[in-house]
Amino acid sequence: MTQPFDWDAPRPGEVLGMLPQTADAGLYFIGQIRTPYARREDCPHQGDFDGPECRIEVLAAYQPALLGLEKRAYVQVLYFMHKARRDILVQTKRGSGEAFGTFALRSPVRPNPIASSIVKLERIEGATLIVRGLDCLDGTPLIDLKPWRGPI
Amino acid sequence: MTQPFDWDAPRPGEVLGMLPQTADAGLYFIGQIRTPYARREDCPHQGDFDGPECRIEVLAAYQPALLGLEKRAYVQVLYFMHKARRDILVQTKRGSGEAFGTFALRSPVRPNPIASSIVKLERIEGATLIVRGLDCLDGTPLIDLKPWRGPI
Repeated sequence: MTQPFDWDAPRPGEVLGMLPQTADAGLYFIGQIRTPYARREDCPHQGDFDGPECRIEVLAAYQPALLGLEKRAYVQVLYFMHKARRDILVQTKRGSGEAFGTFALRSPVRPNPIASSIVKLERIEGATLIVRGLDCLDGTPLIDLKPWRGPI
Repeated sequence: MTQPFDWDAPRPGEVLGMLPQTADAGLYFIGQIRTPYARREDCPHQGDFDGPECRIEVLAAYQPALLGLEKRAYVQVLYFMHKARRDILVQTKRGSGEAFGTFALRSPVRPNPIASSIVKLERIEGATLIVRGLDCLDGTPLIDLKPWRGPI
């Protein structure tokens, strides 16, 4: 039996910071994201517009806020990486041991673990978006949706 | 004397939602953004890579997390639009009265008023980034910095 890999243990050379005692602002989870990725090791390294369909389930209370989004081909999704540590300021690569500051990485580990992904919108069914291009864990809390107007 | 414009008053046709009583997660402000825009009416409609230099002042406690970011030409900045209402689900355009869901707009007014901007990194001085491409109010709280790897 091998030990399961501990995603949360700091690696040699990593620098931990002290987080504040209290938050400066609050987030509301406005829905959840359903993907085929149940465990961190299942997640692809980044999303792919030709990848599997994923579902973004918006809470019924926020459904009116989707009006007009169906006309967009691409959507920016902000979500909260609720399984990630928030206190590592310098991270090292698993293979090389090379050190990078957290803000020079797109790793989930960061003081405010908010991810931003651009997804391809296939369709909207009620309060659920069917999209391609996500790489996050199944059950990830949704924070925001915005039309994407930048280049693809 | 004309009345000052009330940015916060809902317009006819707008739909208000009920926000939860308690937050689901907390944000830490990791610094602040200094721009030439003191009032909302001073902010350009969107950022411009040829616009004025702005300063992103990261708190000293998080400075180690900048390691390696100086090599990047473009940075994604997440910030908290602390002056915006959070409870409007359908918004109407000031001129036409046309209605759009909040998630079909990039307006600051949204349940979680987090903005995402891509900026051009000019240089880093200590814990301060000098950048171009921001359109936010002076004093806006900073939430996150990530290297931008997408197309520009």
